Amino acid sequence: MALAELKLRQRSDYGFFLDCCTRWNDNDMYGHVNNSIYYFLFDSIVNTYLIQHCGLQPLTSAQIGLVVHSHCNYFSPVSFPATLKLGLRTNRLGTSSVEYEIGVFERGCPEVKAVGGFVHVFVAREAGRPVKQGMPLEMREGLEKLLQRGSISSKL
Amino acid sequence: MALAELKLRQRSDYGFFLDCCTRWNDNDMYGHVNNSIYYFLFDSIVNTYLIQHCGLQPLTSAQIGLVVHSHCNYFSPVSFPATLKLGLRTNRLGTSSVEYEIGVFERGCPEVKAVGGFVHVFVAREAGRPVKQGMPLEMREGLEKLLQRGSISSKL
Amino acid sequence: MALAELKLRQRSDYGFFLDCCTRWNDNDMYGHVNNSIYYFLFDSIVNTYLIQHCGLQPLTSAQIGLVVHSHCNYFSPVSFPATLKLGLRTNRLGTSSVEYEIGVFERGCPEVKAVGGFVHVFVAREAGRPVKQGMPLEMREGLEKLLQRGSISSKL
Amino acid sequence: MALAELKLRQRSDYGFFLDCCTRWNDNDMYGHVNNSIYYFLFDSIVNTYLIQHCGLQPLTSAQIGLVVHSHCNYFSPVSFPATLKLGLRTNRLGTSSVEYEIGVFERGCPEVKAVGGFVHVFVAREAGRPVKQGMPLEMREGLEKLLQRGSISSKL
Repeated sequence: MALAELKLRQRSDYGFFLDCCTRWNDNDMYGHVNNSIYYFLFDSIVNTYLIQHCGLQPLTSAQIGLVVHSHCNYFSPVSFPATLKLGLRTNRLGTSSVEYEIGVFERGCPEVKAVGGFVHVFVAREAGRPVKQGMPLEMREGLEKLLQRGSISSKL
Repeated sequence: MALAELKLRQRSDYGFFLDCCTRWNDNDMYGHVNNSIYYFLFDSIVNTYLIQHCGLQPLTSAQIGLVVHSHCNYFSPVSFPATLKLGLRTNRLGTSSVEYEIGVFERGCPEVKAVGGFVHVFVAREAGRPVKQGMPLEMREGLEKLLQRGSISSKL
Repeated sequence: MALAELKLRQRSDYGFFLDCCTRWNDNDMYGHVNNSIYYFLFDSIVNTYLIQHCGLQPLTSAQIGLVVHSHCNYFSPVSFPATLKLGLRTNRLGTSSVEYEIGVFERGCPEVKAVGGFVHVFVAREAGRPVKQGMPLEMREGLEKLLQRGSISSKL
Repeated sequence: MALAELKLRQRSDYGFFLDCCTRWNDNDMYGHVNNSIYYFLFDSIVNTYLIQHCGLQPLTSAQIGLVVHSHCNYFSPVSFPATLKLGLRTNRLGTSSVEYEIGVFERGCPEVKAVGGFVHVFVAREAGRPVKQGMPLEMREGLEKLLQRGSISSKL
């Protein structure tokens, strides 16, 4: 998706939300939340959704999600002690994989601060490989709810 | 203070509060929020208070707080995606230093999960040494509000 | 660059190296270094290079580098207590911006574990905007040394 | 132990060592490695020792170590990109618990920068409680090697 389009993301483009407090040490020496911290927040909203709506039990589920790609575009900085609101959508859903997009908003500010995402491949916990049937049905059904118009779902 | 006493800490023992979300990667391989993470949260509640109520501007204030000691007692584990409530009090207030105590509570649970704290020494930003007059007046007045009964304040 | 090509990266494709120890809490609940941690390491090798070879002084330099984009492809997991070797190259050098690529290797293993990177835009510290003349000359000269064959440098 | 005594710690007071690189984001807004980061490093040296010399397998061992107390005294700051050398000793060894002390040194500098430590209680992974026989024999034997003169070991 074109960068100019991502910059226009609004809260209404997302289907699940998480409020995230920033932490003192999120700020680096330049006084902004460090670029790496956003990925911690991406992990947090995705896994919160997977635990609450898709049946994930991190320590015992037969399948777990491995991150094979991640990226983020930063439009304007945020700083501790800001409170952030993250929005989550899924942009592509395959047999064993899903592509998440996360928008980062700051309380009281309509413009999106950053937009990023990552790709989860669901694999058997021990073998570390996708299983033939793909991700569990409960996982798929949960993730489908976050597909937005124009997104791609494939059950093949 | 005796450990048995600390275990009985309640929300009412504290004067300032901060809601903190946990993050996916706060959990270590054992599935609990790692012991180090609590210190990030301590830093966050203290500096939130210093910024909001004591005039601290982290990048420009003439004096900054250096941590010279920190400690924590962990009573029972918490795990992502728990939401935590932190409570802050000051237990000792000197000319240039202050001793904070923080209680860590989990939403919906009366028992305190952990109690810790640290000591800030306020120093001139460049010189790295306390100044003769001690911490700024606005700082002192803010910190005094969090002194609890039985705590010690010294203006000497 | 095509993913298949990135997977073939070798140490010889990079011009500057940093040994990085992993930390206990880098591992998430699945026992692998969490995807976010790689970005901490990217920041570390880039800023080590900027400080040692390009004249950056993080707290005082007139210009600082803001991250506007970052990404990473993860090919196979690593786990604490592994020791990692990071390699750095620059793939594009503009007037005020630079695109870094970092390869993540594990000691004793020839295959690259992950390849990622980010884009720095150098801005005036206070104004937060690029300056007309672009990045400082010492910065440009240092970054040019890491341009690899096939990379693009523009002084315009 | 008196603070004045801890300030005099030397490398020779410790029995196991780990080189640790600092990371860009370890530095907080004041340009020093944040106080919380030291605890990540403490975890790292202790668990490296437990894995390499005491038979710990973090994801499968029958017993795991829970941290019930931690503390640190900071004598002088360190800053990225410093390389640190950590030293480890055990100061008390009980049936199911052990008290570690860690000294933090900077390459090329004899004076200790910080001294801290924590207490591990070994518990059954599922039950979360110590077992009657105490920690595994291999664990005990490994930890005994780090007891320094004047330390206390109890096999009761």
